[in-house]
Amino acid sequence: MDPDARERALLGIDLGGTKIAYALGGEDGHPRRERRRATEPSGDPRADVARMAEDVRALLREEGLRPAELGAVGISVPGPFDPDSGTVLRPPNLPGWDAVPLRAWLGEALGVPIQLENDANAAALAEWRFGAGRGARHLVYLTMSTGVGAGLILDGRLYRGVRAGAGELGHVALEWQGEPCGCGLRGCAEAYLGGACLERRLRQITPAASQVATLAGGREHATPVHLVAAAHAGDAFARAELARYTHYLGRLLAVTVFALAPEVIVLGTIAVAAGEELCFAPLRRQVAATTWPHVAAGLRIVPAALGESLAAHSGLAVALERLIGLDPGLGA
Amino acid sequence: MDPDARERALLGIDLGGTKIAYALGGEDGHPRRERRRATEPSGDPRADVARMAEDVRALLREEGLRPAELGAVGISVPGPFDPDSGTVLRPPNLPGWDAVPLRAWLGEALGVPIQLENDANAAALAEWRFGAGRGARHLVYLTMSTGVGAGLILDGRLYRGVRAGAGELGHVALEWQGEPCGCGLRGCAEAYLGGACLERRLRQITPAASQVATLAGGREHATPVHLVAAAHAGDAFARAELARYTHYLGRLLAVTVFALAPEVIVLGTIAVAAGEELCFAPLRRQVAATTWPHVAAGLRIVPAALGESLAAHSGLAVALERLIGLDPGLGA
Repeated sequence: MDPDARERALLGIDLGGTKIAYALGGEDGHPRRERRRATEPSGDPRADVARMAEDVRALLREEGLRPAELGAVGISVPGPFDPDSGTVLRPPNLPGWDAVPLRAWLGEALGVPIQLENDANAAALAEWRFGAGRGARHLVYLTMSTGVGAGLILDGRLYRGVRAGAGELGHVALEWQGEPCGCGLRGCAEAYLGGACLERRLRQITPAASQVATLAGGREHATPVHLVAAAHAGDAFARAELARYTHYLGRLLAVTVFALAPEVIVLGTIAVAAGEELCFAPLRRQVAATTWPHVAAGLRIVPAALGESLAAHSGLAVALERLIGLDPGLGA
Repeated sequence: MDPDARERALLGIDLGGTKIAYALGGEDGHPRRERRRATEPSGDPRADVARMAEDVRALLREEGLRPAELGAVGISVPGPFDPDSGTVLRPPNLPGWDAVPLRAWLGEALGVPIQLENDANAAALAEWRFGAGRGARHLVYLTMSTGVGAGLILDGRLYRGVRAGAGELGHVALEWQGEPCGCGLRGCAEAYLGGACLERRLRQITPAASQVATLAGGREHATPVHLVAAAHAGDAFARAELARYTHYLGRLLAVTVFALAPEVIVLGTIAVAAGEELCFAPLRRQVAATTWPHVAAGLRIVPAALGESLAAHSGLAVALERLIGLDPGLGA
């Protein structure tokens, strides 16, 4: 049998601060075997990477595969990395990881092509290939977890910009001289939309009588999850806070629409939890009112679709990009 | 001789509200023969387009060429157009032009492939191929004439977005609920940076003792040209106004940098006139202070270089894109 005619397997890794997820898939990028474990960084990144290589070999053995039979490995990495050298710079939740040449180390251990993307870009690729943005030519993926990240698919490919710095929509100013942001600037979108900032705000301003405080067992334990649950239950404070949140999100989307005219904006995490009535419907009205009718008419604003399977799809979507880069015919 | 081996001529047209410029060039896109005339719209767009076709034939005759020997015609059109049908929608300064199928009409008259771009995109292509952004992979061109327009070159090609709506940076909000903009929204960049809005402001607030008023022969005649001249001469009012202008421009560039991480931002018109000391130097400091060091370090902010030859280069740059689209080997 011609070895080139055999379908190549792809392997995706989602490297998070608390969990690491592995997924093995076919050339279509769909996961067919998955494994997760706690990340448990040892403080020695060489040992951490060696353990990742062992995880990969174990997963491959279950399918009777050797590393050389992998078409590509894609890794979603948390935070900044150098795309030229494949070096993970300094992820906030991986102690001891400082300028780790992950692509080189794991590539030497496995002997296969490896591609890194930051988590927002990887998630954008995943929602575009397998989720809410399938078939879109121009897609913006925006996620509000601890921080705010975005990935841009423009003209049918991931756009990274200089030093992979594009899509930092979390640091577009939504108020001039506004709330301080963790990045050192003021008024950034992340200071209004990021989970960490929202949580800090909730712990300061939630009234004791609000359902947010009740659900959390005291406002000092309040999180965005309690805010969304209380809003769904009709709590007035929670609804007003979520309306404020959606308003700032609308400001960011108007900027995004004027700059990029995307076909679809896919929103993750807090927006997905808040849902149609409390988030997407008012958001669409606001974007229509603060952009232009013919622009807003060409735009869909939709919730992310992959949910719990995002981790498995993210790494595989990156691996698929690498495979298409090596063999463009696959991307047709 | 194999006709495919002959160099193909390109023709560029810059269709403006007051002037129309024609340029004939080789496959390298450099103009070698030019002609301009007043646009003089007749009120009958069919007659206007027929006159354009006759202008083209006359220019070709001077070089001993027939229309069939043209590789492509590129046209820079003012304002919105439908990229799918090649229809110019309703340019503000061309009376009688309402949904004019310019690509079809001129294409039938000349029998050659024709490509339209709006003027900001055409100028972005021209500065990227022939001007201040040569060799850049990611370029943002921003021009502040009557309105504010931008063109985006991302990953080495023009990015248009849905319905060619990308790059409307003039309508990114720089103040929430700020000054009214001609587009009907409030706080748009164009309300602070556009020549028409700046002129209106100058005619309202210029002190009679300011050199702006003296140079203009009365503040009711003041224009951005007088503002820049008075600022260069050291007039205090003009310097303060130009500093305010540069501050708002800096806000827009910070948004642009976080969204797109370009390698170079090329600024036209008012910024070019204001120059290094009064515009570019303070602008670079502000962008460095309101973005992140590693992002600002990867960015050049430079004046447009084509000046008076922009009109000749704009249409030719569009024609060159069309030729490269037909024969991608030329773009290498």
